[in-house]
Amino acid sequence: MKFEVTILGSSSATPIFNRNPTSQALNINERLYLIDCAEGTQQQMLRFGIKSSRIEYIFISHLHGDHYLGLIGLLSSLHLNGRSKSITVFAPPHLKDIINLQLKYSETTLQYPIHYIDTNPNKVEIILSNQDVIVESIPLDHRIDCTGFLFKQKKRNRKLLKEKLEELKIPVEYYTALKKGVNYTANDGTVYKNDILTLDPEEPKSYAFCSDTIYNEQYFDQIKSVTLLYHESTFMHDMLDRAQTTFHTTSLQAATVALKVGAQKLLLGHFSARYKTLNELLDEAKTVFPNTELAIEGKTFVIGE
Amino acid sequence: MKFEVTILGSSSATPIFNRNPTSQALNINERLYLIDCAEGTQQQMLRFGIKSSRIEYIFISHLHGDHYLGLIGLLSSLHLNGRSKSITVFAPPHLKDIINLQLKYSETTLQYPIHYIDTNPNKVEIILSNQDVIVESIPLDHRIDCTGFLFKQKKRNRKLLKEKLEELKIPVEYYTALKKGVNYTANDGTVYKNDILTLDPEEPKSYAFCSDTIYNEQYFDQIKSVTLLYHESTFMHDMLDRAQTTFHTTSLQAATVALKVGAQKLLLGHFSARYKTLNELLDEAKTVFPNTELAIEGKTFVIGE
Repeated sequence: MKFEVTILGSSSATPIFNRNPTSQALNINERLYLIDCAEGTQQQMLRFGIKSSRIEYIFISHLHGDHYLGLIGLLSSLHLNGRSKSITVFAPPHLKDIINLQLKYSETTLQYPIHYIDTNPNKVEIILSNQDVIVESIPLDHRIDCTGFLFKQKKRNRKLLKEKLEELKIPVEYYTALKKGVNYTANDGTVYKNDILTLDPEEPKSYAFCSDTIYNEQYFDQIKSVTLLYHESTFMHDMLDRAQTTFHTTSLQAATVALKVGAQKLLLGHFSARYKTLNELLDEAKTVFPNTELAIEGKTFVIGE
Repeated sequence: MKFEVTILGSSSATPIFNRNPTSQALNINERLYLIDCAEGTQQQMLRFGIKSSRIEYIFISHLHGDHYLGLIGLLSSLHLNGRSKSITVFAPPHLKDIINLQLKYSETTLQYPIHYIDTNPNKVEIILSNQDVIVESIPLDHRIDCTGFLFKQKKRNRKLLKEKLEELKIPVEYYTALKKGVNYTANDGTVYKNDILTLDPEEPKSYAFCSDTIYNEQYFDQIKSVTLLYHESTFMHDMLDRAQTTFHTTSLQAATVALKVGAQKLLLGHFSARYKTLNELLDEAKTVFPNTELAIEGKTFVIGE
């Protein structure tokens, strides 16, 4: 099952040439989940071949402009391009007020419904559960209400050992039960244990999106053993004071989060415009957590690789 | 005196790769006037070397997203970059409601004042007059309230013929009066007519920004003999029906406007995403008005050349 994230933007608020503020496209089993939608996200999707018509869910972490200002444009374009399928937006409660005001004054009635699901910045909540994933909000600690998002693959069915089943002439109608772990009893009463007929499914993987937040252990338990951790690292650690006053994290701290929660891999993002190149941020994080990469725009990360 | 416009974006609402929706930077005597501010305008300014800190005035034609969605991001960045100087925004009345709501929910108090001047879509008004220009709103005819903007250079002083003045030993303290057209009377009573001491100043030039509008002669008188006419031309003339139902203009119609008002030059813009290349639009317009160019992003047009 496909589970991968494409970076559409990873700069922080102040714009810098050729770096876009936050947005990511998550592909889970060929369904598209957009996480944050900064100004310019539509252009980034065009650049990197992400079809906006395929978006089913949109997650907005908080109402600082560098995380949502591209949303109204995207919603309008979907309308202009004839979308009729509904879209679900998980966001702080007031986002809909802003969107509705903009639609009102442009005298636009969207041709498709938007379902707004309010996020709660104060507690962990399951905000979505479908055939593929469970999504939880992650209460973060930022200057304004802010949540991250944890995407956890659902446990898959057991994998059938087709050759073995054919050899034993097990009728196809039993396959669904076998996938669930049930033993097979043949007509002659012989019991075949499930574990000789099937293989364990892949371990469910998970993706945590943590932006923006000050270093705060409150969400560490929730993201324990996460497969891929995207964490903001706005500054280098020599700017810790600035990180703290602006409720951001340093790259050293982001690496400490990854280490402490036992993440498999760390992805750094939300870079301050002061860093024209990003290798220093990466090097600093690697001193604490070697399996770290930079959230470079256009790059796709397969979760679990 | 510098009087030139740099195109930052010239596409219409639906996004297209590598074409940005409407924004233009007008440089008048080294003061910066931003006209419309679509999503992505900040990136375009970075790309084309236009310093956003130098903007003094912002003009927003109407509240369709492809004309103003980049504004809140720009205003926020100016704040983050430490601006303290006020900025004046000429726009439909409700723009400030949208901006204020966005500032409220991001818990941001800008460090500099914004002066909002409401535009009136129903009549011509002088909305700005400074040392260099007079700016009038142009009532356009679009699906929602919309105004264009007419920038008219003020008449300059007469140009001193320095060599002649030195030859006649005219004291420097008379120069200001000479520039205004006053004759010079020497100590011996000889009167020197102003026109042998000075030259006529350059004819004042003008720039009309007309986007978005259906073809409607209501604003033709106002922009008569304009030096450079920017006019929307969303469609080719074979899409006249679509142009009319969406309150837009075809390239043939835009050329007809230029011809009828006696413009010196026409600049076409606001191109529909359906046109991957733009030469057909240009060719169509040239059949009616040969001195036409395309508003290509990054290109600077000197008004009067």
